[in-house]
Amino acid sequence: MAQPTDIPVLDLSGPNRHVLLVRRPTGIPQTEDFALAESPVPEPGEGQFLVRNVFLSVDPAQRGWVSAEVNYSAPVALGTPMRALAVGVVVRSRDPEVAEGDCLYGWFDWQHYAVADKTRIVARARHALPLSAFAGPLGINGLTAYLALTTLGRPEPGETLLVSTAAGAVGGFVGQIGAMLGCKTIGMTGSDDKVRLCRERLGYAEAFNYKIAIGTPDGLSQELIRAMPEGIDVFFDNTGGPMLDTALRRMRVGGRVVQCGTVSVPQWTPPPMGLRNEREVLTRRLSWSGFVIFDHAPRFAKAMDQLAEWVGDGRLVYQEDVSVGLEHAPGAIAGLYAGENSGKRLIRVV
Amino acid sequence: MAQPTDIPVLDLSGPNRHVLLVRRPTGIPQTEDFALAESPVPEPGEGQFLVRNVFLSVDPAQRGWVSAEVNYSAPVALGTPMRALAVGVVVRSRDPEVAEGDCLYGWFDWQHYAVADKTRIVARARHALPLSAFAGPLGINGLTAYLALTTLGRPEPGETLLVSTAAGAVGGFVGQIGAMLGCKTIGMTGSDDKVRLCRERLGYAEAFNYKIAIGTPDGLSQELIRAMPEGIDVFFDNTGGPMLDTALRRMRVGGRVVQCGTVSVPQWTPPPMGLRNEREVLTRRLSWSGFVIFDHAPRFAKAMDQLAEWVGDGRLVYQEDVSVGLEHAPGAIAGLYAGENSGKRLIRVV
Repeated sequence: MAQPTDIPVLDLSGPNRHVLLVRRPTGIPQTEDFALAESPVPEPGEGQFLVRNVFLSVDPAQRGWVSAEVNYSAPVALGTPMRALAVGVVVRSRDPEVAEGDCLYGWFDWQHYAVADKTRIVARARHALPLSAFAGPLGINGLTAYLALTTLGRPEPGETLLVSTAAGAVGGFVGQIGAMLGCKTIGMTGSDDKVRLCRERLGYAEAFNYKIAIGTPDGLSQELIRAMPEGIDVFFDNTGGPMLDTALRRMRVGGRVVQCGTVSVPQWTPPPMGLRNEREVLTRRLSWSGFVIFDHAPRFAKAMDQLAEWVGDGRLVYQEDVSVGLEHAPGAIAGLYAGENSGKRLIRVV
Repeated sequence: MAQPTDIPVLDLSGPNRHVLLVRRPTGIPQTEDFALAESPVPEPGEGQFLVRNVFLSVDPAQRGWVSAEVNYSAPVALGTPMRALAVGVVVRSRDPEVAEGDCLYGWFDWQHYAVADKTRIVARARHALPLSAFAGPLGINGLTAYLALTTLGRPEPGETLLVSTAAGAVGGFVGQIGAMLGCKTIGMTGSDDKVRLCRERLGYAEAFNYKIAIGTPDGLSQELIRAMPEGIDVFFDNTGGPMLDTALRRMRVGGRVVQCGTVSVPQWTPPPMGLRNEREVLTRRLSWSGFVIFDHAPRFAKAMDQLAEWVGDGRLVYQEDVSVGLEHAPGAIAGLYAGENSGKRLIRVV
């Protein structure tokens, strides 16, 4: 079995350091909702293991994990470490199937050390790629792009694929994978730099800055018509909101809408209003589906093999936005929603 | 091949009588948008045939067929007969595959006689059932109920199926078919009489009057919780609007929403507003699809055999609302949207 290429030499002196959730956010989690804390390095019990985290992941979905609203996971309790994915190295194990030195990607939270059992593992890092790749192109971002596009978007060669947050952590992979699958890929993104990135590095046939487009009356609709006069076969949407409303009205008959995020809508309580979309669903015979990555766990291993092959070939490129030090974590989610990052946001804690 | 059981003796004296579209409606077509007219009975050309209509169909979709908005069929031209489905008998034929005496269901419009070719046939009436059944349980209403439910709703035995316009021309079949497929079926309808009909005749395990439910704050939501504490697996929606918004918030994870009509929304220009639903699609992993019956023509013959078997067995019952005389057609669509009818609305013109 292959190993990651850059496993660091670890200093295992304590203490453990955590980022705790200390206040329940009502919208996007802010720096002040978190606090840094320390405690002794824990000991694994029978059937458990101790992981030293190397990369902590910062994900838009973390907004949902701390929300009191009905959501797809139980909210993080106040006073406990912030739920997060991380890539780490096993430094002690009392589980015979997990060995010291194993590299794992899983639910190890925003902290230096985690005691966990196998239910917390999302995937084993077993390809000869840098460790951070397992939190990026082979992590939930790459898996989401690949599995949401192929299972719900089902693009055919020659079809037109529109992607929102086209240069983002997921969108950047969707554009490249769509192009490899033979689609005409079009990206919507939020700055001229990201437009360039989409065109030059991320496989998009065309990209535009939606902030300029929505600055004029009917501007976004006109931009969609210009870039895709034929209409949209697959819309891979990470934003929701008015961009979604506009794109739905440019879908072709039989089009597929993959709802993978709703990052443009800052609050869901009280419920925001928008255009009624049911007649678009009906007359265009759309298939509009929601994608949550952990429903698809049985497909991860095979998808990771495909993604690792593309990354290894240099056909699937990825961007990272790495900060060093746990103290960068508390403000990192708000920064993501503000569009500060370009590519996958990680916190390196080694 | 079997024949319908009640083919009438036809008086073939002229003239032809039509209902013409004379004004472009902006919302629901009203009586004044139509005019009655007469002309000589036409002669079929080579490859054509002449049909004497017996039953004219009145369908909610006719609203869309006269609308100038982008829609799924070209709008009916002003001054021409109103587009409609009808069941008729061939009285002259210059097509070797169509014989005098054949009973057909097709695009024969609101008139006594139609010259048509084979492209206008939706289905041949070839089961031993009353002629009107071919415009009802075996027509687009029954076909829509059966094919939309089985291809997009995909209910599993034991699942919970909610149906709006539950006693309507399509909904009345959905409830019965859902029950035959092993679902717990729940109907929403607009009067206490229709609630009784749903419970006593249309296979619903439970039904309620949404007009009473929505008269109190949060009333519809409470009613859905009472009838389906477990949540909704399949929502077969003919209404759209606030009922849809409320039901989406009671869907179970992995639920399917079949958008088959939007009858509760009177106008789409300017676009009406409603609750943003994309987060429901995402977090509940819904699959929300639009159904238009004519996409599914290759499945009609097999579906009609199944429907005819159920009708013949008495397991699938149907209600009709028949007016006699062409003069009832002009006001019939508006009446449908006002909920006047109970069951399939037909105009008998023989």
